[in-house]
Amino acid sequence: MKIKNVNKVTDYKYLNLFSIQYDDRLNDEKEYIFASRSDLTNPLEKLDSQPDAVVIVPFHTEAKKLVMIEEFRVALGGYQYGFPAGLIDKGETIEQAGKRELFEETGLLATRILKQSPRVFSSSGMTDESVSLLFVECNGKPTNQFNESSEDIQVKLISQQKAGNILFDDTKKFDVKSWIVLNMFAISGGI
Amino acid sequence: MKIKNVNKVTDYKYLNLFSIQYDDRLNDEKEYIFASRSDLTNPLEKLDSQPDAVVIVPFHTEAKKLVMIEEFRVALGGYQYGFPAGLIDKGETIEQAGKRELFEETGLLATRILKQSPRVFSSSGMTDESVSLLFVECNGKPTNQFNESSEDIQVKLISQQKAGNILFDDTKKFDVKSWIVLNMFAISGGI
Repeated sequence: MKIKNVNKVTDYKYLNLFSIQYDDRLNDEKEYIFASRSDLTNPLEKLDSQPDAVVIVPFHTEAKKLVMIEEFRVALGGYQYGFPAGLIDKGETIEQAGKRELFEETGLLATRILKQSPRVFSSSGMTDESVSLLFVECNGKPTNQFNESSEDIQVKLISQQKAGNILFDDTKKFDVKSWIVLNMFAISGGI
Repeated sequence: MKIKNVNKVTDYKYLNLFSIQYDDRLNDEKEYIFASRSDLTNPLEKLDSQPDAVVIVPFHTEAKKLVMIEEFRVALGGYQYGFPAGLIDKGETIEQAGKRELFEETGLLATRILKQSPRVFSSSGMTDESVSLLFVECNGKPTNQFNESSEDIQVKLISQQKAGNILFDDTKKFDVKSWIVLNMFAISGGI
């Protein structure tokens, strides 16, 4: 496979399409369209840099429950279960962004960082979007009073038993990352 | 939150941008751009339908190893570790698509379906893309001889110990779903 050319083909603020000309294994010239949050002309040049966003996997130690949020997602036209998450601001570390987003979206305070994933990719068949996962212990009383006006969030504390009950509840929509962790939590009781 | 209008703003074959006009919690009118594989004018109308793709989480029972693929991803301009996956063809069930993609991408045969997730969403902050996860047991000899010309894949059989070794190896890129399962596999030895 050989990448020959990359062009930005739309001009929106937060998300754009890019066209890649490349040769496949048989040396046939192909075009590939992908979506990116990058503000570069060629997003492939930034692939060793910081992730776009942080996704927090929070375990509430007093309640012994997994913390999830039910959030309105414009692209889905409805509510989705997922983890607190957000874009990393300029100058922020992944840990700082994670603690900030956890507090803004749930009112909870991270008390211990358990694990931080490397930069991993959301769905590379269609986008170069990348995130880092931050597994944390947290405490406090859940609230949505620190939400931004663009956010519509309910905080959910989920026991191991409840996790097993909602995994296949088809009245709920789940983010894929949260579904995999919820499945693991239903089996093991931990994150 | 109130969705008022949805418009397709590009015209590519496999992936497009859509613009949503909506009112936020404070009744301020906002615009939101997202990416979709949908061929509908308004992708929000298809949200109770089939997932776009299936992602297979394969456990090789004879080798007692997790199966991953290292695949060239055009959008990343390089190789990424992930699970076998692919779009669901018209008329196919999720299970049929999963078994087909597993065979095409790895040469392995699914011998037992362990678990099938509901339709879950890849990254709903930027796309309505959805997948179903198919956890399977499989057997056979890995090969890439059934790859399509657009595919450039190496099959990897990963032991529990190896999983722990590569989780934080920053010379490798991982898909987020595969990283979470790999983390779970490193801890428990199972999927």
